[in-house]
Amino acid sequence: MSSVIDMVKERMETQEPFYSLEFFPPRTEDGTINLYSRIDRFATQPYPPLFVDITWSAGGVHKPGSPNPTPGIVKQVQEYCCLTTNMHLTCNTSTKAEIREILVKAKANNIRNILALRGDPPENKQKLTNDFKYAVDLVKFIRQEFGDYFCITVAGYPYGHPDCTHDADNLKHLKEKVDAGANMIISQLFFQAEDFLRWVEDCRAIGIQCPIIPGILPIQSYSSLRNITKMSSIGVPESLLKDVDPIKDDDAAIKEYGVKVGTEMCQKLISAGTPGLHFYTLNQEVVTMRIIRNLESFKRVRTIRELPWKRPPGIKRSREEVRPIYWSNRTKSYVARTEDWDDYPNGRWGDSSSPAYGDLTDYHIFLHTNRDKPEERRKMWGSPVTVSDVTNVFISFLKGKVKELPWITSEISPETHQILEELVDINRRGFWTINSQPAVNGKPSSDPVVGWGPKGGLVYQKAYLEFFTSPDKIDDLVNVLKSYGDRFNFQLTNLKGDYLTNVENALAVTWGIFPGKQVVQPTIVDPVSFKVWKDESFCLWIQKWGSIYEDGESKELIKSIYNNYYLVNIVDNNFTEEPKIFEALRKVTKEEK
Amino acid sequence: MSSVIDMVKERMETQEPFYSLEFFPPRTEDGTINLYSRIDRFATQPYPPLFVDITWSAGGVHKPGSPNPTPGIVKQVQEYCCLTTNMHLTCNTSTKAEIREILVKAKANNIRNILALRGDPPENKQKLTNDFKYAVDLVKFIRQEFGDYFCITVAGYPYGHPDCTHDADNLKHLKEKVDAGANMIISQLFFQAEDFLRWVEDCRAIGIQCPIIPGILPIQSYSSLRNITKMSSIGVPESLLKDVDPIKDDDAAIKEYGVKVGTEMCQKLISAGTPGLHFYTLNQEVVTMRIIRNLESFKRVRTIRELPWKRPPGIKRSREEVRPIYWSNRTKSYVARTEDWDDYPNGRWGDSSSPAYGDLTDYHIFLHTNRDKPEERRKMWGSPVTVSDVTNVFISFLKGKVKELPWITSEISPETHQILEELVDINRRGFWTINSQPAVNGKPSSDPVVGWGPKGGLVYQKAYLEFFTSPDKIDDLVNVLKSYGDRFNFQLTNLKGDYLTNVENALAVTWGIFPGKQVVQPTIVDPVSFKVWKDESFCLWIQKWGSIYEDGESKELIKSIYNNYYLVNIVDNNFTEEPKIFEALRKVTKEEK
Repeated sequence: MSSVIDMVKERMETQEPFYSLEFFPPRTEDGTINLYSRIDRFATQPYPPLFVDITWSAGGVHKPGSPNPTPGIVKQVQEYCCLTTNMHLTCNTSTKAEIREILVKAKANNIRNILALRGDPPENKQKLTNDFKYAVDLVKFIRQEFGDYFCITVAGYPYGHPDCTHDADNLKHLKEKVDAGANMIISQLFFQAEDFLRWVEDCRAIGIQCPIIPGILPIQSYSSLRNITKMSSIGVPESLLKDVDPIKDDDAAIKEYGVKVGTEMCQKLISAGTPGLHFYTLNQEVVTMRIIRNLESFKRVRTIRELPWKRPPGIKRSREEVRPIYWSNRTKSYVARTEDWDDYPNGRWGDSSSPAYGDLTDYHIFLHTNRDKPEERRKMWGSPVTVSDVTNVFISFLKGKVKELPWITSEISPETHQILEELVDINRRGFWTINSQPAVNGKPSSDPVVGWGPKGGLVYQKAYLEFFTSPDKIDDLVNVLKSYGDRFNFQLTNLKGDYLTNVENALAVTWGIFPGKQVVQPTIVDPVSFKVWKDESFCLWIQKWGSIYEDGESKELIKSIYNNYYLVNIVDNNFTEEPKIFEALRKVTKEEK
Repeated sequence: MSSVIDMVKERMETQEPFYSLEFFPPRTEDGTINLYSRIDRFATQPYPPLFVDITWSAGGVHKPGSPNPTPGIVKQVQEYCCLTTNMHLTCNTSTKAEIREILVKAKANNIRNILALRGDPPENKQKLTNDFKYAVDLVKFIRQEFGDYFCITVAGYPYGHPDCTHDADNLKHLKEKVDAGANMIISQLFFQAEDFLRWVEDCRAIGIQCPIIPGILPIQSYSSLRNITKMSSIGVPESLLKDVDPIKDDDAAIKEYGVKVGTEMCQKLISAGTPGLHFYTLNQEVVTMRIIRNLESFKRVRTIRELPWKRPPGIKRSREEVRPIYWSNRTKSYVARTEDWDDYPNGRWGDSSSPAYGDLTDYHIFLHTNRDKPEERRKMWGSPVTVSDVTNVFISFLKGKVKELPWITSEISPETHQILEELVDINRRGFWTINSQPAVNGKPSSDPVVGWGPKGGLVYQKAYLEFFTSPDKIDDLVNVLKSYGDRFNFQLTNLKGDYLTNVENALAVTWGIFPGKQVVQPTIVDPVSFKVWKDESFCLWIQKWGSIYEDGESKELIKSIYNNYYLVNIVDNNFTEEPKIFEALRKVTKEEK
């Protein structure tokens, strides 16, 4: 499933158009972190890309002597954004030994998709090697050395290759690349849908049979349009220039124009039966995102969750089927802290042989979020001086007025909306919720809100709630919970590590029953991971929240919460009747709703 | 859980009286197989024994030079009857090295309960060693060499030890054994409840605090009564002799008498607060069984199934939680054929590293059943000459008129009774059923028919049916099954190995959801085990059925069924609505019910 060609063919069979995105390695670390956030926004919207491309950072783009950043970015995008990634690779300045080394490492990092290119003529002091003259040599080399392991995509040039003046030769070279073992073609940019479609016909006429995907350059600014066409030696059509010239200094207008013509061209391509669209994003987001959202075809695509959470592509975690629920709003941190595990639990939590979590580092705390922008966080969360001020931040988050919390960086999920009113009520009572799920008693796996897994199945959940609360409520809370007999499993802990629980072993909180399959239980609650999660979640109070204030009341308030409050989670084992967690919490605060 | 003292203490806490049984090693192989069947009948009735004792076959009872049969019998009873077993061990003719070797082997075989005895004065050429003079020396040695691993029981003598004339010394010796590390006392036989109870008081008075269990000798025949009392030097009370003398030649009357006085004495003991009863069965069954069935207290005991099938006691299979459904009527064969596995699957089928089944041998085919009694089987199954004759055998089994089938040696289960009428109907239509379960959609784990597992849970099942049928029905059957879409998973195969299926991987057919636990899925259907089961189930046609006839029509008929018929199983994935398997089968035979 992480081979691009397999994924594309599956979409062609089901006639569900897809899109993919191309990004280039940023020059700075901050830029790279921003890029991950950007890709993640694409990945988490309702119509995520089928795959993304990361271009090859050939000589000169990255600092001489430092390692090429492309493979690292590909690995991160795969593991943390859970997107299958196509790594570009150029060959004209590399030896066979160098290319071999790159590919061996790629394979070890679960990278199995390569876009094979010749590369531009070298700048700086780099020299051409004679090992690879053309892209076709790289395709041959990959097939010869690595067999069928890699999915190979090659570039096609609807307007001809800049170094090749005969159209017939162009097509011949393209066919040679396919005959040498390429699985798919992505086209260079073009300006009219008709240009691409005519060229595809020419390709088919000389016997090229693999999928051919159009590469779309959304018009995002006047300068980028000029630059890219100059670089690729493609002349901008007169009609386009005539449209753009009058608004060339009005960025907003250019973008509007880009969305309009981009949407129209994409609609034409899809109507003509093109299986998918590949966007040259130039690391920008807005125009591409708007075009995608305009396209009706993507809206028809079912977004099936394989599991309630996303698994990174690749072999390493391919059998993983169980995770603790604690990190469900911080999956990247979970993936990072477990990446050294030898194997991942599938049937049951605890079957894994290496359940030790990686240390909590700054990297894990800030993973892919507004790293260096305390001012943004101050704007979101204000400067609380009382506990009610903090309560209001939690309530504002639930109401969509605050974009994120230290523990939750995404919008609240559709299933959370089902219990929103109850959540607001108990937050108001001083139970600051950071994770929850409603009970589900056998809904179809196709259910748009809580469904996951193959069709024809039934999914189940036990109600779950996790929150911070003040130490003075703990005694009453425990008494109320115990008064329900075995109904609730709960865990309570504070920074010091005081720990109160009736959870002895891992317990399943989400599971599914499917035709022809064993039971799948993708999320669990367990006492061992909870202690690890406790450290992470308390740390976030200070590192993401307390740290944004100068010394003073707000800093002291957050520090005092950090030092004294309890982290609590509760599972309602009765998933077939009305959940009682909220009722129990209302009893603790002694005023009925 | 397989430590006798832990089990006894648990029953004392819950105030649920138990009983245990004592057997001695038979002198012949046939006798041993009969003993297993006998123990198995106790084990599978509604009030099974808490544990059984196997006495030590000291010198002379077994053939000189051949290994002592006791440890082997203990192992078999534990593994195939799934009963925790207390192994007797005498020491007066053994060296420390010999005892150490016996105990090391016992430990390796998951035996962890020892009844430590001195032993009778040696007969034949055996000599007393000086390593162990009294039972207390053995208790000390076991504790010294094996720490707390073994649960040690010792014998107590309400009427005094034959070699010790002073009552006070008797109690002192008993207390020494307890002080040396014995966990429990089982008494020697006695004839009046009051004698035992008075003696227990004496034991308590000198500070013996461990559980003391009365050993009951049911009166089963005049000769055995005389022999046993002679051997143990205990005088039979006058009143008893007066009762028995007039009927001493009437076996049936003696047995009736034994049941009556045994029941009365047991009732007195239990009313007085005795935690359990230990029966000296003398390898007999009837009187003990009747006394047990008379005792109201046992009827009150909940019989909780930990899982839908029984796991042998001991460490080896302690984590086992998943089995294929095929062997559910032949669990002993399953246990035998998997006993070499390195580990047993728990969370999921297929996680086990060694899924290879042991070869099918005669031993597996006949395991614990009427091994050498073809005449009994001929009486049960008659001499069929037509296919309908065979159909009638299957129907007679369902109706309780035939006691067993080659594939099923126990009575049909309570849950099968729920679908009995449907089963009879489809057997009449030529689908000879050998295994089935109804669908269950979340019944309490305490349900008396389908419940299993800890309290507060819900259990689920997919409807399952397995049968033999003639080859002419196969095409229609497949078409009908496929007409239901993904609803059914099915496997069809014949002796030659033609195989038709839509089962790709293991699929769960029984599972349970419990408070504070992960999902448990104790039975599955899978394609790999099915092929192994197919060989076993076809083999049973010939070995258990065809083989009982001389050459002729009946033998030819069974052989032809063996050669041509199909073994089929069907899972109905829809467990929340009315099952459709029977409806589908009726469609195949084209006449609606």
